[in-house]
Amino acid sequence: MQPHLLGLEYCSEEEINTILKTAHSFKEVLSRPIPKVPTLRGKTIVNLFFENSTRTRISFELAEKRLSADTVNFSASGSSVSKGETLKDTIRNIEAMNIDMVVIRHGAAGAPYFLTQCIEASVINAGDGYHEHPTQGLLDLMTLQEKMGTLKGAKVAVVGDILHSRVARSNIYGLQKMGAEVALCGPRTLMPAEVEQWGTEIFYDVRDAIEWADALNVLRIQMERQKTGLFPSLREYTLKFGVTREKLEAAKKDVIIMHPGPINRGVELEHDLADSEFSIILNQVTNGVAVRMAVLYLKSGIAEDN
Amino acid sequence: MQPHLLGLEYCSEEEINTILKTAHSFKEVLSRPIPKVPTLRGKTIVNLFFENSTRTRISFELAEKRLSADTVNFSASGSSVSKGETLKDTIRNIEAMNIDMVVIRHGAAGAPYFLTQCIEASVINAGDGYHEHPTQGLLDLMTLQEKMGTLKGAKVAVVGDILHSRVARSNIYGLQKMGAEVALCGPRTLMPAEVEQWGTEIFYDVRDAIEWADALNVLRIQMERQKTGLFPSLREYTLKFGVTREKLEAAKKDVIIMHPGPINRGVELEHDLADSEFSIILNQVTNGVAVRMAVLYLKSGIAEDN
Amino acid sequence: MQPHLLGLEYCSEEEINTILKTAHSFKEVLSRPIPKVPTLRGKTIVNLFFENSTRTRISFELAEKRLSADTVNFSASGSSVSKGETLKDTIRNIEAMNIDMVVIRHGAAGAPYFLTQCIEASVINAGDGYHEHPTQGLLDLMTLQEKMGTLKGAKVAVVGDILHSRVARSNIYGLQKMGAEVALCGPRTLMPAEVEQWGTEIFYDVRDAIEWADALNVLRIQMERQKTGLFPSLREYTLKFGVTREKLEAAKKDVIIMHPGPINRGVELEHDLADSEFSIILNQVTNGVAVRMAVLYLKSGIAEDN
Repeated sequence: MQPHLLGLEYCSEEEINTILKTAHSFKEVLSRPIPKVPTLRGKTIVNLFFENSTRTRISFELAEKRLSADTVNFSASGSSVSKGETLKDTIRNIEAMNIDMVVIRHGAAGAPYFLTQCIEASVINAGDGYHEHPTQGLLDLMTLQEKMGTLKGAKVAVVGDILHSRVARSNIYGLQKMGAEVALCGPRTLMPAEVEQWGTEIFYDVRDAIEWADALNVLRIQMERQKTGLFPSLREYTLKFGVTREKLEAAKKDVIIMHPGPINRGVELEHDLADSEFSIILNQVTNGVAVRMAVLYLKSGIAEDN
Repeated sequence: MQPHLLGLEYCSEEEINTILKTAHSFKEVLSRPIPKVPTLRGKTIVNLFFENSTRTRISFELAEKRLSADTVNFSASGSSVSKGETLKDTIRNIEAMNIDMVVIRHGAAGAPYFLTQCIEASVINAGDGYHEHPTQGLLDLMTLQEKMGTLKGAKVAVVGDILHSRVARSNIYGLQKMGAEVALCGPRTLMPAEVEQWGTEIFYDVRDAIEWADALNVLRIQMERQKTGLFPSLREYTLKFGVTREKLEAAKKDVIIMHPGPINRGVELEHDLADSEFSIILNQVTNGVAVRMAVLYLKSGIAEDN
Repeated sequence: MQPHLLGLEYCSEEEINTILKTAHSFKEVLSRPIPKVPTLRGKTIVNLFFENSTRTRISFELAEKRLSADTVNFSASGSSVSKGETLKDTIRNIEAMNIDMVVIRHGAAGAPYFLTQCIEASVINAGDGYHEHPTQGLLDLMTLQEKMGTLKGAKVAVVGDILHSRVARSNIYGLQKMGAEVALCGPRTLMPAEVEQWGTEIFYDVRDAIEWADALNVLRIQMERQKTGLFPSLREYTLKFGVTREKLEAAKKDVIIMHPGPINRGVELEHDLADSEFSIILNQVTNGVAVRMAVLYLKSGIAEDN
């Protein structure tokens, strides 16, 4: 097992399978009265969050505490980053304090890779620019696998602003490696240039995606991106790409709905659909802690040592 | 025991007594060389603070650590709240990560109750708008009971801006249930409409309150509220409602002084009185940790399980 | 051993020796697979940071966790300090919650001393205004001692803005007590009035300091201070006081380079020198955790109790 998790693009099917299997056993731990294991006792994990985050940060922090690791939180505000220190100096200084793993979220694609060139500790990517968000991809895989039994042959459509989505990229790589079929659906202006080489279906109307798919992974729309000119009006977006009960019923079949959160209810997803029988959104959140425990455990090197 | 603590209005005398008794035993724990118990080991408590707070947040955090719980801190800034997520989605997501209890401070009255409708975890109100601040009320009860031996028949005057005070409301409900007599004292403009139905004495000059009372609970004046027009000038306020040694001496009897902090020294309370023989203000702070340990323990359901 | 660490000015050579010796044994602990000891289990340490800091805060926090202490973090923003509460009231309230030690960083020289007058808990100075930063001084001593074998007779030049540097003051006191010779080097406008009474060499060109010294402690330049009129242009500063490989080679001897960080690469220190064979900068960071563990342990009173 490689010591870092930079993206699902660089993981083999075997590695993904090992992580998912381990996540399932940790999920069992989480259902115990005392949902803790001493696995990473004495290990120190630094959470380096250069971008705002609630659920990802809390999910990692819970995963770390349930593995009995010591955690140190670092956010860009209130730090020496504001004193103009380079990322390299920041991280090498933190490493010199004998830490074991770094979880990093950063606005620049490639920042986690850059860290691996500066330090020896394991680096876990918690989202880097428009590149990847691999633990999100893994929890999507785990939740879908639980629901469908297998990912082989599963038809998953990722719906929304594909161009600016690290969640989309991690889903495409992860799903394809696990034998699923992937489709992308969104406005033409929000499809990346590399879309051709991914070998996915492409839809420009969510009705077509629903017709095709077993599951939809509905992306969050970044409201502030409307100013860029790439984006249709919200009303237009919702008409063409918003997932609604009416569109689901027109397809006359069950479709699983996933969303990485936070949801804009009434925009990309109809208000009550998020809480409906179609949704496995909260299961994704629950599995997120188990997946992150698995990644931290497997990347810590503890497994090999034993 | 109900799983939530929303306000002292909804607690029976018996429940308050149980909490106070439990707090007394935890206070004994706090005096040990290692002031920790494994009571909540493996339980996860989320501290959701949507308003600034020092002492309440630290007091809850210490209580949680001394019970060996795992804690996760969440503050509104730097979170997905700033991405426009609803409180309901925020809390349901956090709950999906398998947490056991939520401690919430929020500017809107009723926010803790709203949480109980969204999630199954226990909810502890750490202050909601102008509604209640029940753990503050409980620590006031505990400290007064320690000082006076019993609350039955104790005469307690709450002095200040009653209209905007959640501390006042929790005191009124808690003290009356425990058999104390309550008076309210403050400017007419800062008396709430519902004051009649509380069945308390009302004074419009602090000298009269001192004459009547065994103990004063002096509220903090929110300086910024002076702009509202409801508020007299600071000078006028201090003359009529400021608690001074001169006014105490004029009453020719001992009066206990409490304050929820932070104190505006020289405004609602004369500078040195806070540190005088009359004051039990720091005892309140000490008891705050014990009371919060008791609430967290009793509401965790651990007690019933054993 | 005194219960507080306010500055190296007030420490005896013996006390410094005890701290350094203890730090060496903790450094051995840090190299173990589980770098933790139960030494301060059940003790509560409050980190009161009124100024921004990354490495000092994280270093203290790691030291505390590796001693198994419980920690509470307090930063000025989001606290009752913004409600106008005095430092005295803030700290007395926190102490009333039964805490054992306070680590304080504050913009005002003397703030840690002031705390010792308000509370009974141990106070550790993590940097106060332009006064002292004693744990930085101690880690500088430890790292230099490791490198040189002994501090007796070592020649150390502190280079930079001496006037505004708490690191310089802690270095001068610490090094002189340990038998080292100290020189100061910087622009005349940035030499404090009291420089005469310290009995140090003074250089106004870094070439002279390099000629003289076994080791340079290169201070960080505060860019924002250039507006004060005391400061030469950056270009001028770098020419005269910037440490470069060229200047080192001109001296035809090895010189050890230290820096308290964060580094302005290319300003006070040439870009690659920080990572060169001359540099012991990352050793300083590593030793920082061990030194802080030693200080926290020795000042906790645990040692005397046993």
